[in-house]
Amino acid sequence: MSVKPSLPKGTRDMLPKSMLEREFIIDSIKKVFKKYSFSPIETPAMENISTLSGKYGDEGDRLIFKILNSGDFLAKADKNALESLDSKSLTSSISEKALRYDLTVPFARFVVQNQNEINFPFKRYQIQPVWRADRPQKGRFREFFQCDADVIGSNSLLLELEFVKIYDEVFSSLGLDVDIRINNRKILAGLASVFGVENKWTDFTITLDKLDKVGWGKLSVEFLEMGITQANVDKLEKIFIEKRTNAETFELLKNILETNQEGSKGLEELKFVLDNIQTLNIQNDLSFDPSLARGLNYYTGAIFEVVANGVELGSIGGGGRYDELTAIFGLKGISGIGVSFGLDRIQIALGEKNLYPKTNIQSTEIMFLNFGEEEALFGLKLATELRDLGVKTEVYPDKAKIKKQMDFANKNNVKYVVLLGKDEMESGEYTIKNMESGDQFKLSRIELLEKFNLQNKRTDGKH
Amino acid sequence: MSVKPSLPKGTRDMLPKSMLEREFIIDSIKKVFKKYSFSPIETPAMENISTLSGKYGDEGDRLIFKILNSGDFLAKADKNALESLDSKSLTSSISEKALRYDLTVPFARFVVQNQNEINFPFKRYQIQPVWRADRPQKGRFREFFQCDADVIGSNSLLLELEFVKIYDEVFSSLGLDVDIRINNRKILAGLASVFGVENKWTDFTITLDKLDKVGWGKLSVEFLEMGITQANVDKLEKIFIEKRTNAETFELLKNILETNQEGSKGLEELKFVLDNIQTLNIQNDLSFDPSLARGLNYYTGAIFEVVANGVELGSIGGGGRYDELTAIFGLKGISGIGVSFGLDRIQIALGEKNLYPKTNIQSTEIMFLNFGEEEALFGLKLATELRDLGVKTEVYPDKAKIKKQMDFANKNNVKYVVLLGKDEMESGEYTIKNMESGDQFKLSRIELLEKFNLQNKRTDGKH
Repeated sequence: MSVKPSLPKGTRDMLPKSMLEREFIIDSIKKVFKKYSFSPIETPAMENISTLSGKYGDEGDRLIFKILNSGDFLAKADKNALESLDSKSLTSSISEKALRYDLTVPFARFVVQNQNEINFPFKRYQIQPVWRADRPQKGRFREFFQCDADVIGSNSLLLELEFVKIYDEVFSSLGLDVDIRINNRKILAGLASVFGVENKWTDFTITLDKLDKVGWGKLSVEFLEMGITQANVDKLEKIFIEKRTNAETFELLKNILETNQEGSKGLEELKFVLDNIQTLNIQNDLSFDPSLARGLNYYTGAIFEVVANGVELGSIGGGGRYDELTAIFGLKGISGIGVSFGLDRIQIALGEKNLYPKTNIQSTEIMFLNFGEEEALFGLKLATELRDLGVKTEVYPDKAKIKKQMDFANKNNVKYVVLLGKDEMESGEYTIKNMESGDQFKLSRIELLEKFNLQNKRTDGKH
Repeated sequence: MSVKPSLPKGTRDMLPKSMLEREFIIDSIKKVFKKYSFSPIETPAMENISTLSGKYGDEGDRLIFKILNSGDFLAKADKNALESLDSKSLTSSISEKALRYDLTVPFARFVVQNQNEINFPFKRYQIQPVWRADRPQKGRFREFFQCDADVIGSNSLLLELEFVKIYDEVFSSLGLDVDIRINNRKILAGLASVFGVENKWTDFTITLDKLDKVGWGKLSVEFLEMGITQANVDKLEKIFIEKRTNAETFELLKNILETNQEGSKGLEELKFVLDNIQTLNIQNDLSFDPSLARGLNYYTGAIFEVVANGVELGSIGGGGRYDELTAIFGLKGISGIGVSFGLDRIQIALGEKNLYPKTNIQSTEIMFLNFGEEEALFGLKLATELRDLGVKTEVYPDKAKIKKQMDFANKNNVKYVVLLGKDEMESGEYTIKNMESGDQFKLSRIELLEKFNLQNKRTDGKH
């Protein structure tokens, strides 16, 4: 009874090559997070559904993966929902847990639950997978990794500056040319208010968030249906679609939002970031993009999005300020801000741009060919001594044909093989072959250990 | 509407202190895996249920977390199961995916699915969480991490030796004194056969696996019920319960299994490992324990288990050889062997034995106190220069009372704070305070950068 193996839609295996690429990216991100004094945390994959639901909008709620209760789950099932075959109503009675949808809401839950063990302002980073039942497409998976850094417990705008700088440093160190986009939710709230749809604020942002996907034509119809006048929709087109410098965008919005307090506040916050960021010497562009909305409900101030220039991929990072996210869990008056790096898309972008370092290969330094049990056991003892020196060493486990063993060594980028037969065991001189150059030479045990100990020390930094 | 935050039963948050402990353990394990030329892979958290079910016994099947199908899952639900409220029958029609239960079965699936991209014998390591709907207790969680290394595509007994050595090296490097137990499934199969319950082989191992939990009294009754005679149950008691040296155990079993081919094969394999392991210079004890059964169905040869001496915790590692695991997925004639490290229990054991290195604290090197926006922006520029040198630097984001800022620095083990007010901005001389000694001194910008650049280089190895 053999089952043809497959994986759930939108999920992937990571082979060693892919893992090394990912480790390269994660190491670069972690290095920056640590320089900025963020500490690592992790939260469980599963959260109570009550923790997650209602935080990501209706669409988000639908995309959350729910876990079926264990055991006889139907015993406690909602009988009415069962009879009417109402999947949505039934869910809450047969499923109490769900897979996390992002890292921000679990982090807010974490902060409230562990508030007595945390010093505020609390700076944490978290690198874990999240799951969304989204339609898979290029760069969009059902399991993907987020690398988040957040500060909670301060509303200082210095943090907005630091997060722009963090984006800039990470992508500079990866060699990826990006555009960092910034906007402020207060500006959008101001626009909704000025254009008379303050009461449809959520719809307004959800509609705007679809701009890249559906284009302006469709959006303008939705704005009209929302109750915005044709003249004002034309103004929105000017605001959202026209290309301008940051300063021009600022002046345009300043006039429109002049009489609106929240909008003006948003502009002022944004100006602080634009004015001061250059003194921090950033390498990538920071663009004020008033059409940037971010889909998630919880943002209240600055919002960020990062796109890789010259790669068709959507955003590779995003984030923003959220003022009352912990209030949902009972801790009021706490502001937070954070950014997320989309590991899976960054991996694709670096691949397309051919930006992985050539030395990013983790290969075996030395492999003992296997001429039989006795020889292999002898080799294993030597291998143990080499490993004690930290040398990546392998003993081919089977007495296969030498051609097969050499093929294996070639495919795995093994640097040296050792030929250790009965003669070599007796003489104590082992034949070493450099797999790249093809050179062969003989070394005693001591010479072998010395050579690879030195070699290992020289290349230590690379691994 | 505030929800009191909580987590699903058996799951935990990892605070920074816990994360640093875990990183210390994972780094130690990875280092050994890499020396033995294992390459990293990862598989998705979700697998198709068909991949997992039937691989872990009935008990295992029950403990697998199933994921509810998305959308209108009742549309495709088994109507008979719905009407009869039969949870078990309904499950397969409303749930197609499940969370992985271990890393071995997903690895077998991985190998078959990616066989054309892999060079056999394939050595991989994998460090990821697994989920089991088990009853939580000390050291047993519903989400826990396994750190696995496996070799697939060779039946060489050299690998049994290497895996014992890997256990030994990892626990030696962690400073944890352990007992590595070894047995062989073929020996158990031989015993079942000799004692006339060959046809109840699975029951035999499942019963034996409960020994530590329920004690011999209960086991002996189950063996009698299975159809083993009283005289033979007495022999089993002698085999399983009496303490002996490895050599004595070997002689005892050799006599009992003399006429049984499979049992004798198992003994021979085991003897090879016992005879040769000492030449590899292991630090911990390797004990031949004929009562070791391992709960999982798929083992066919050597089986391992590791317990920490002096810690009441159950096993902190386990593994073994599995001969035909990939056959279930269509790839026959491939033998595999691997070991697993239980990160969560190792973390507890190291904690109880107080074995974490004192230097295992990741703290901020230097923090700028915040005397107001202008001063803080000035500090942020200096902080940027320090971070460029790789120094862990922080700017307190708010203009809070200095006492509050100093308290924060103390609680977070910040090493130095910088006092940078209007005067210092003008003079270009900044006051630095060593938080441990209380010493204060003044440095110019260049002196500051030089001091921490040097400091950072000296302590680089520690972080």
